[in-house]
Amino acid sequence: MSTAPRPGVVPFTERTPRVAAARALSRRVGRQRAGRFLAEGAQAVREALTWPGEVHELFVTEAFADRDTELRGLAADRGVPVSPVTDRAMAGLSDTVTPQGVVAVCSLVDVPLAEALSGAPRLVAVLVGVADPGNAGTVVRVADAAGADAVVLAGDAVDPHNGKCVRASTGSVFHLPIARAPVDDVLAACRAAGLCLVAADGYAEDELTPATDTGPTAWLFGSEAHGLPDEVKSAADVSLRVPLYGKAESLNLATAATICLYASAWARRASH
Amino acid sequence: MSTAPRPGVVPFTERTPRVAAARALSRRVGRQRAGRFLAEGAQAVREALTWPGEVHELFVTEAFADRDTELRGLAADRGVPVSPVTDRAMAGLSDTVTPQGVVAVCSLVDVPLAEALSGAPRLVAVLVGVADPGNAGTVVRVADAAGADAVVLAGDAVDPHNGKCVRASTGSVFHLPIARAPVDDVLAACRAAGLCLVAADGYAEDELTPATDTGPTAWLFGSEAHGLPDEVKSAADVSLRVPLYGKAESLNLATAATICLYASAWARRASH
Repeated sequence: MSTAPRPGVVPFTERTPRVAAARALSRRVGRQRAGRFLAEGAQAVREALTWPGEVHELFVTEAFADRDTELRGLAADRGVPVSPVTDRAMAGLSDTVTPQGVVAVCSLVDVPLAEALSGAPRLVAVLVGVADPGNAGTVVRVADAAGADAVVLAGDAVDPHNGKCVRASTGSVFHLPIARAPVDDVLAACRAAGLCLVAADGYAEDELTPATDTGPTAWLFGSEAHGLPDEVKSAADVSLRVPLYGKAESLNLATAATICLYASAWARRASH
Repeated sequence: MSTAPRPGVVPFTERTPRVAAARALSRRVGRQRAGRFLAEGAQAVREALTWPGEVHELFVTEAFADRDTELRGLAADRGVPVSPVTDRAMAGLSDTVTPQGVVAVCSLVDVPLAEALSGAPRLVAVLVGVADPGNAGTVVRVADAAGADAVVLAGDAVDPHNGKCVRASTGSVFHLPIARAPVDDVLAACRAAGLCLVAADGYAEDELTPATDTGPTAWLFGSEAHGLPDEVKSAADVSLRVPLYGKAESLNLATAATICLYASAWARRASH
């Protein structure tokens, strides 16, 4: 593998300009400025390297390079440079307490709203004002699993390129289109794409059941702390609550989204 | 409210014997020895105080006591003593970085296996070797929401009284019977209770669909890291995988459990 670190090559340190530039990507402003973000860990890096978008560079610790049999091969196939870094440089690039030792510098994954909703989508997850990156990433993973056509982050939401979000998505940020836009634009675009706007609302009168079929659907999910804003609930075509059969007072965002998205995925398949 | 801290009452410190004894409950061995555990935060404490089991004492910070309008009333109604503690004492009792300022000392919630499975259960969640307390607590919450009759922790699993587990359950540990037992005993008892043993296995040939109806069901879930042990898969009556419609390689434990438990809850209601 021609891009493998050669014996005797001195690893980059945290002061090497390319490492310092990559480190700036751990902050939102740095990502916006550079149009790049960091995907960390073997799984995310593997998904990045099999993604059609651009991967600019891999940084690996020597310990990771020693045990890796796969990623440097994938990188070589795509002509992505692989640079060894010191453990300390990796710690600066990593968002975790115990870094796995591999990070990819990627172009941002998000696409314009119109592109995310092109091609007659059947199932879309819209997160309105969801600020927690772990929750957002988990929903991206579930949306991917349920075969959703896109995830849209509406309003003042988390950056999907946030390290915790990328990690919680376990690579799913590379699997389906993700867009970010103001709430009104998102609702209008979903409607224009022929999607039924369905608000997931724990206080809704109507219950989601396996018999529910809303056709091509944009599910609207609010933040765990505040739920959906009233104006979004009013704008929705339908409001549905996930039934609670026991004594639990509520579901967390990821759980509710899981039930809603799979119910839609199943309804669509049942109606064929 | 007679049990409210009176002005001039000196709050307990971390060296007060009752506080020191409660602090020992943050460790598994301390909980086993005392037969008690700590439920932290307003939501968990509220659920504890409306639970039929025994609550021995509440510790509150002065800041919490000043703004609390509900919990001391509930405690007074049940004759549960409420003791003010210093912020430092609370920090020692708390499992979180920013304690809410209220902790309840409760008797352990778990019951014998036979008791958990009594009364012709229809839906039971069995966690085999699940070590992560956050995952376990989230599944307890989902099982509660789906109307499960019990949660059973089989084999070398997390203590359901672990602070992170209690918190992730958002009080659901107080809502449905929880039992702990060796794997073989759990499988035998589920069978004896007339439950179909259904292994949730990402590699199973058969797919879970809304048409799946396994009757009264014990879902068997493995750990996120290792899945179900082979001997448990072999012992199951049925193995089912949650379908992945997109490019996601897998689902996390809580997501998979959500889909499985709600599918069963819905199948049961559809068959009536």
